[in-house]
Order: sequence, then C-alpha cells, then structure tokens
Amino acid sequence: MDFVKNAWYVAGWSKEFDQQLHPVRILGEDLVSFRTSTGDVTILQDRCPHKLLPLSQGRLIDDQIECGYHGTTFGADGKCTHIPGQPRVPPTACVRAYPVYERHDIVWVWMGDSEKVDYDAVFDLPQLADPDWENHQGDALHIKSSYLNVAENLVDPAHVTYVHPTTLGSADHASVPVEYETKGDPILAWRWIRNAPPIPLFQQYGDFKGNVDRWQYFYLHLPSTAVIDFGSADADLQSTGDRRHEGVRMFALHFLTPVSANTTIDRWMHIRNTHVDDEETAHRLDEIFRVAFAEDKNILEAVQVEEDKSPNGAPLQLAIDQACIAYRARIKQLAEAEQSQ
Amino acid sequence: MDFVKNAWYVAGWSKEFDQQLHPVRILGEDLVSFRTSTGDVTILQDRCPHKLLPLSQGRLIDDQIECGYHGTTFGADGKCTHIPGQPRVPPTACVRAYPVYERHDIVWVWMGDSEKVDYDAVFDLPQLADPDWENHQGDALHIKSSYLNVAENLVDPAHVTYVHPTTLGSADHASVPVEYETKGDPILAWRWIRNAPPIPLFQQYGDFKGNVDRWQYFYLHLPSTAVIDFGSADADLQSTGDRRHEGVRMFALHFLTPVSANTTIDRWMHIRNTHVDDEETAHRLDEIFRVAFAEDKNILEAVQVEEDKSPNGAPLQLAIDQACIAYRARIKQLAEAEQSQ
Amino acid sequence: MDFVKNAWYVAGWSKEFDQQLHPVRILGEDLVSFRTSTGDVTILQDRCPHKLLPLSQGRLIDDQIECGYHGTTFGADGKCTHIPGQPRVPPTACVRAYPVYERHDIVWVWMGDSEKVDYDAVFDLPQLADPDWENHQGDALHIKSSYLNVAENLVDPAHVTYVHPTTLGSADHASVPVEYETKGDPILAWRWIRNAPPIPLFQQYGDFKGNVDRWQYFYLHLPSTAVIDFGSADADLQSTGDRRHEGVRMFALHFLTPVSANTTIDRWMHIRNTHVDDEETAHRLDEIFRVAFAEDKNILEAVQVEEDKSPNGAPLQLAIDQACIAYRARIKQLAEAEQSQ
Repeated sequence: MDFVKNAWYVAGWSKEFDQQLHPVRILGEDLVSFRTSTGDVTILQDRCPHKLLPLSQGRLIDDQIECGYHGTTFGADGKCTHIPGQPRVPPTACVRAYPVYERHDIVWVWMGDSEKVDYDAVFDLPQLADPDWENHQGDALHIKSSYLNVAENLVDPAHVTYVHPTTLGSADHASVPVEYETKGDPILAWRWIRNAPPIPLFQQYGDFKGNVDRWQYFYLHLPSTAVIDFGSADADLQSTGDRRHEGVRMFALHFLTPVSANTTIDRWMHIRNTHVDDEETAHRLDEIFRVAFAEDKNILEAVQVEEDKSPNGAPLQLAIDQACIAYRARIKQLAEAEQSQ
Repeated sequence: MDFVKNAWYVAGWSKEFDQQLHPVRILGEDLVSFRTSTGDVTILQDRCPHKLLPLSQGRLIDDQIECGYHGTTFGADGKCTHIPGQPRVPPTACVRAYPVYERHDIVWVWMGDSEKVDYDAVFDLPQLADPDWENHQGDALHIKSSYLNVAENLVDPAHVTYVHPTTLGSADHASVPVEYETKGDPILAWRWIRNAPPIPLFQQYGDFKGNVDRWQYFYLHLPSTAVIDFGSADADLQSTGDRRHEGVRMFALHFLTPVSANTTIDRWMHIRNTHVDDEETAHRLDEIFRVAFAEDKNILEAVQVEEDKSPNGAPLQLAIDQACIAYRARIKQLAEAEQSQ
Repeated sequence: MDFVKNAWYVAGWSKEFDQQLHPVRILGEDLVSFRTSTGDVTILQDRCPHKLLPLSQGRLIDDQIECGYHGTTFGADGKCTHIPGQPRVPPTACVRAYPVYERHDIVWVWMGDSEKVDYDAVFDLPQLADPDWENHQGDALHIKSSYLNVAENLVDPAHVTYVHPTTLGSADHASVPVEYETKGDPILAWRWIRNAPPIPLFQQYGDFKGNVDRWQYFYLHLPSTAVIDFGSADADLQSTGDRRHEGVRMFALHFLTPVSANTTIDRWMHIRNTHVDDEETAHRLDEIFRVAFAEDKNILEAVQVEEDKSPNGAPLQLAIDQACIAYRARIKQLAEAEQSQ
C-alpha cells in the first residue's frame, strides 16, 4: 500500500480524547491515545514490548500507562519508567511516541519520522476561526475502501449526478464541463452552473429572487484532506471565483484517516456563512450529508471488493479522471520518495 | 481449479430473469443479467472497466446499463455507447457479452470463447417437450462444495444406501452390483433390483399388484448436467433398459453451475410419466427431494472442508468409483486441452 | 508451530466419552472418539481415506465406524473391515489409531509415533488418588491463543497482581521475589509471602487465628500440564516447602490441549485438603476460578492477536521471564529433536 508517512492525519475530533485509554489504528499501526491531566493529547504505540499486549488494555495512572499483563509502565514520552521485579529499566524499554497537534477541536498525529515533523504543515482554513462562519463537526464514517478510493471521490465532480441524484446532484450537472488544476497542492477541480434555478437546499437558506450562479470547487490537500466549497449567488451578481463570499457558501470538509490498506475513516464537518448560530440548520445539514455520504460509502466499498479481485486495476481511463489520476500519481511519488530514503 | 470454459452452464430458470439487473457468479466470473424489452436474456461482464463498480449496481435504461458511479453506458452487446464528459467513446470501452440460449424455461450461458459457441451442444431431453410427461422445476440449492464433488455424487449409486436411508435408498440396495459405461458422453452408471416389493414412493404412484423390477440409471453429461432415471415396472413384465417407458418412470435432473472453485448451485427439477397435470404430486415430490438433496449437501460440504485441508486428495480408490474416476479424468482432459490452446 | 508429538495430551474428561462418535481436534489433527461396549476409549483419525468425509459423521455400529458416505467400515484398531461393492479389503485401507490411557477420570492420547508410546510418562499426582484430598473437575475453557502463551502464563507468578487484582492476587505480591528451578521437568517458579494477613479465600476455609505464611508454587510439566500449589499456614508454624501439607493447601491443575497453532483448550480442576466432601465448597471455588481464568483468557487472546501481526515476537525480555524463557526453549528443543529424527 502506498502510505505517505511524513504527514499529518486526523486522529479524532478533540471530544474523542479524555483521561482514558483509547485504541486507534492509523496506516495499519496500532496506537493508544489519552489526554494527560494537563490536557495534552498523548499518542503512543499500542503494544507493550514485553509480551505485546495492547497498552490500551492496561491502566492509566498519573499520566502513565501500566501494562495490564505484568505492570510495565510507560510515560507520555513512551519511555519505560518501571518494571516490576527488577530494579533497572533498560534504555531500550520504550514504545514509540507520535507527535500530536490539536487545533480547531481536531487532533492530528504525525505518522512519519519524528525528526521531520513539520508543525506548519497541519491543515488549516481561515473560516475555521472566523466568527462570521459557523462550523459543525459531523460523523466519523467508517468505509471499507482504501483512502485513495475515498479521496479521489472527493475531487471528482462527475460522480455527483449518478451517485447523489436526489441529494447533492441534479441531471443538468452532467453536461457542464469541469476545469482542473492538478500541479499544486491542493489539487483542484471546479465548475460553474450559470443562470439556473437554485437547488432546493440553497433556496431554503439563500432567499434568492430568481436564477442563480452555482459553483462547486473540490480541493484535495495531500495526502487526504478534502474541502468541497459549494454555493450560489444571484445570477445578476455575475459572481466569479474570487467573489464567492458574496453568495451563500458552504464547505464540506473530509478528513480521511487511512486505517489499513483498504479501510478508511472519513471524519466530515461543514462550515457555512448563512444561518450562523442556528443549531437547527446544522442538524438539518447533518441529515442531508449523512444520506449523501452513505451513497458514496456504498459505491466505494463495492469498488474495493472488485479491486481486491483485480489487482491490476481498471483498464479504462476517462477525460473526467484528470484530477484523480494526478492525485494518485502524486501520492505514489511521495510514498516512493520516502521509501527510497 | 479445472473449469471447462467452452461449455454451456445454466444461468438460471427463465423465471429468474426480468427487466432488472441481477448479478450472478459463474466459474468465478461476475456477470450481470437482464431481459431486454423484446424478451431476450442478456448476460454481460459485471464490472465497469472505468472504476470496476459492478454494473449490477447501476441502472437499466432502454435496454442499456448505465454505471452507477459515473454514468458510463453499455448496450446489450457489451459495447460502450456513452461516456459523460467526453464526446468520443474509445473502441476499447466495452464489457464482455456472453452467448445465451433459452429453452424449456431454462437459460444457458456459454462461458468460453465466443467464436467457438456451439448451439447444438445445449443439453436437451425429449421428455422436456413431450405432453405425456410432466416436468416441474424445483429449487436452486447452494452447496459449498466444488462442482466436481457434487457431480460425482450424481453418478454414484453406491452412496444412496448410506446417505439417503429413509428417502431414496434402502439397505438391500447395497449389495446389488452396479454397471458402468464410462467412455461416452454421458457417463453412465446403472443397476436393476429385480423382483422386490415396490418402495413406498412408487407404491403410491404406481398401483402395483405385486413385486416390481426397479431401475436406477445415473447419466452424467459433461461438464455438469445429471439425469437420474429411476422407476419400477411389474416384475411380470420382465422390463429391460429399452422398455422403461412401460413402467412408472421419473427423472431427477440436476443442472450444476460452478460458482467458484468450491461453491456450486444445483438447480434440480423432476419429470414423470405418472399423475401428469397433478400439481399436488409435484409438490409432494419436491418435499421428498428437498430432504434427500439436503442430505447430499451436508455430506458434500463436509467433504469440501476436508479437501481444503488436504490438497493431495484422498488416498483410497474403490471399485464403486469407476464412474467418478472417469468423470474427473474427462473434465481434466477437457480443461487441459482448452488451456493448451 | 512447535508441537511436541511424542507426548500425552488430554483428550477430555472421562465423562466426555460415551458410545457415540465425537470429533476432537488436537495438534491440528482431526480425531474421532468413542467408548466401546467394553468401556474402552478409542481414538481414530477422523477422516475416511476414500472421500475424506469425517468418520464422526458416520455411524457407530458394534464398536465399528461405518462411513456416512459409502459405508466403508473401520474397527477400533483403525483397520478397514468392510467395503461395500467389493469383496476384498486392501491392507492400505485404514485410518490411524492413537494410543489412549485413562486414569483419574481423565483420558489421555499419545499424538506421536505409536512405537514410542510411553505409558509411564502419563502425568500423575498422588493427591488425585488420596481419600484425604478432594478433587473436582472444572471446565474446558477454549482460548484463542497458542498453548505456549497459555502455558507460560501458568508458570508466571508476576502476572497475578495485574491480571487478577480482585481474585487471586493482591498488590503486596508484586514486590515479593520469585525463585526458579528451570533445569528439570517440571519447571518451577515459587515464592512465599511471610507473616501477612490471610487472603479472604483462605480466611474462609482455614480458620486462622492471626497472620499466615502464604506460598505459591507453579509447576509446569512438559509439554503442557500445569500444577499451581497454593496455600497458607499459621505464621507461628514457620512452614517450609516440605511442610506445606500442614497448612490449608490447594492445587489448581491445568491440562492444556493444543487444538491448532493458535487455539488451546484449558481443562482445569482443583484439589484441596480442606472441606473434603463438601460439594458447596467445590462449586464456590469453581466460581472464583471461572472469573480468574476468564481474566487470563482475555489477556492471552489479545496477545495472540498481536503475535499474529508480529511474527518476529516481542523485543523485550525481563527478569520475571526466567521460567517462561526456559519453557519455550525446552519445547523448541523437544520439537526440533523429533523433527530431526
């Protein structure tokens, strides 16, 4: 599996961490998390080096983990502090400690070489800290498909018509051309549907008088964070890419955590510049997204089943695949560069 | 696994096909079937060449399948007719279409090279179209055992005494010698039990005055269709093989569809020259066969479990194995001949 | 997997055997057992050499097994006595018969070379036949972990404090040094806790006036029988290893049967020199042991899951591992010696 290791992945929403031990699996590695008494999230390798028992089956005592089999104890830095039955703790007795960064109620973990940790590389979005915008955390959706399949679905406007005909898409989308920018990070695919009636979702929140211009921008940040920026503005405004804030605008964010080669957690949230402070709106949007993302999950899991049967992959590439092809090539490049070092 | 590809296999009873998409797996290949608006059964490869999504998860529109992920569309001949987002359809965009033949309410599919398709080779039996005989389709029995195990059970009179003591067999069978013809197609095993009381099943339908001569003829047509011809005639008649129609006679037909290397569907039906047009009799026979074939399924699945543990096979061959040994050798021969071409 | 074959393993408590066929799996081999009309336990290979059907799915007739597929019949010595449809039984037609030994209501089977069978090597303990002691058979606990993991847990006093804090252990155990004798058979680990208050379990049965001396002796007989001897005596007595019988003394016996490389049955029983003939006490001890051994099972199964992920094993060995390390080395030695012959 092509995993990019020197990168930040979401370990969970902040509310998932407390002063208890929680196992979590990322990139096929078993980790254990807890929040210390001073509030910091700690993430360690979830395996005692003595008999391999997961430390998450032990006890958290004074910000240290005591193994549930023989009482071997590890501090938040992963170093062993106590071994029952012997006075000396050998320096090799330790578990790996992973760099952690918490911001905007999201906990990130650095899965690669600790010496290369780059705190400036943690994903950010100005609207997450802007009081004029409301953000709301949705679910942690477990998908039995590789993160590559899930990610490419999030930079792929073409699927919306067929997978989400009753929620996010509409038949008239299908013929609108998509534009791409595949050289940078994020990879971007976008399109405008000009001078059309507003879709029901936006009619409800936008109070539009007549036709609107609608946009969909799909940003895919390497390795696996997607931002889907979509909205509508009165057609009279003749909106453009740099004037989207004048319309009713929403972001659907997807933080993909590869669990194993073929399973992924998609933690999604949404941000909006309308009906701010209206809890009811947030829950109604949750309901719509839950239906839509379950449609994706259904497709993506079926695709994984077929990929497992056909390791050589699919024989046909289409014009609509530009961003997906670029994404996979970039991931491959990053993973190979790491492996060759 | 030794699969004979250039052959017809039953894809289903005719009633299993309608104007909806149905996935079906044969010889380890995933197929999708539907009936067109003109009534023809179409069978295609069940996998979009673009992202591998099974086409059976798409939509059937005007006798064409639209993929459920990106709307790529395929006609009944397997050729791609439309790709959203691009004007040109490359000639390589297609899925495999399988030759189909429907007769006697049975749908057959040719799994091999389309250029070698042989419509004369579809299994037939005169009684299936004879108004003096009643035929009745039973169940599609799913068996977790290779079709070779299931097939050899159907040309094996010796197992009847031990597997079906209360349904099809009786203890006195065990000692009656079996005769074999293993050179032709079908392979044949048969025996006569002379001048014995009728078994309950035939007493009920035959109205015999005294002892009867009973026969069992097991025909195994390559690769996997079995006809078991069994019946009774008054012992006074001194019946012979070519005068079986004078007695009360039944056929149990088994159409074996290899699903994968170790799973098989056994679609069985029965034909009889007694109590024609009596629906009640058909259902009573169904009940008897259901009990008996569940006994076979039980044995055959246990055998498969052991075979999976012992890939070298069983060390002991017996005199009663003549037809089974011949059958396996013929299948091996056919499969190897195909593979060497 | 390192299995020692030339050894006795428990096939079951005597009460598990009757005049019916029972399948049992030991060292990855499938066996079928029954008790003959004269009361002897017979254990044969559970696989007909003809079509591989487990003989346990056949019928027991006159101390012989008739295969459920074609009636091939085997005697208690494993030799085929009858093949339907042919007069001659070839001498190669047989299944393996395993040496069996029954004593103290326990049935043992010799899994190795029959010519090396050693009846003197069957495990025994004088108290099993001593009327001053009460012995009681507990459960057959199925554990999804290798017998090596289960066995080393039974010669490991150090885990008691952490795995059984509310049942068998107490925090003050942790600091008491353990002594070892690892050269002989059994391997032995033991410790004394001197001049301490009696634990609740022994207070109840011992009627002690003040502090007691407590002992724990863990004997591990190769390949997989453990005897844990634990008890208490008035501290005034200044008890020693050879005077344990003066106190309140119990044995927990564990007979480990490796089922496959990573599954084990732990049949446990207990023996005591107090409250003899009191059925109620036996059941109360059962309840305590059930809770404690379920705690072990929980740990041992988690360890197995991790071992399956990390075939190279755990990187850290501790001072408390002496007996475990010796045990694994001895097993490896025995297994390799067998394989090199």
